[in-house]
Amino acid sequence: MVVLRRVLGDELRRLRTSQKRTLRDVSATARVSLGYLSEVERGHKEPSSELLSAICQALDTPLSSVLISVGTEIAALEKATAPVPLHSRETTPAVTSAPEVVAAA
Amino acid sequence: MVVLRRVLGDELRRLRTSQKRTLRDVSATARVSLGYLSEVERGHKEPSSELLSAICQALDTPLSSVLISVGTEIAALEKATAPVPLHSRETTPAVTSAPEVVAAA
Repeated sequence: MVVLRRVLGDELRRLRTSQKRTLRDVSATARVSLGYLSEVERGHKEPSSELLSAICQALDTPLSSVLISVGTEIAALEKATAPVPLHSRETTPAVTSAPEVVAAA
Repeated sequence: MVVLRRVLGDELRRLRTSQKRTLRDVSATARVSLGYLSEVERGHKEPSSELLSAICQALDTPLSSVLISVGTEIAALEKATAPVPLHSRETTPAVTSAPEVVAAA
């Protein structure tokens, strides 16, 4: 299952490291503890709306932009983990197909 | 300040009512309590990643689609509530502008 807080944490870490900034710097600017920010980045803690806003502000990135990036990344993951529909057997038959099943179709 | 959980709650309520479904129906499908779903829709509670996924699934809507809608709505709100830059005084001077300030510029 796609877990929002993990994808969100990855995006926040990606933004911070692309700006070559430390956890210490961003956590101080956002007025959150360094340990808390680290837990959020690792997808271990769910930040409240207020704390997520403060972290985005510290990263000079609009909250909207972070949400749209996370939504786009989750869309790709949803596609990758979507269950294969049953009728795909008809178009891509298994190499070891049982002849009696084919005959019955 | 734009509060994520309020915009998210509005979006979840909009989806549910557009499907003409009740809180009772969606909360039962998502296996969350009716009171909890109502609090989430009103922006009073922050749903965890798992509960948000369950609510989206109950609404037959991908989490990614909800996040992108919420991000887009927040982008419009950020634009509407953005502070007016200082240099806009030059193009739209106040009616009661102080002459000495203008002279100093």
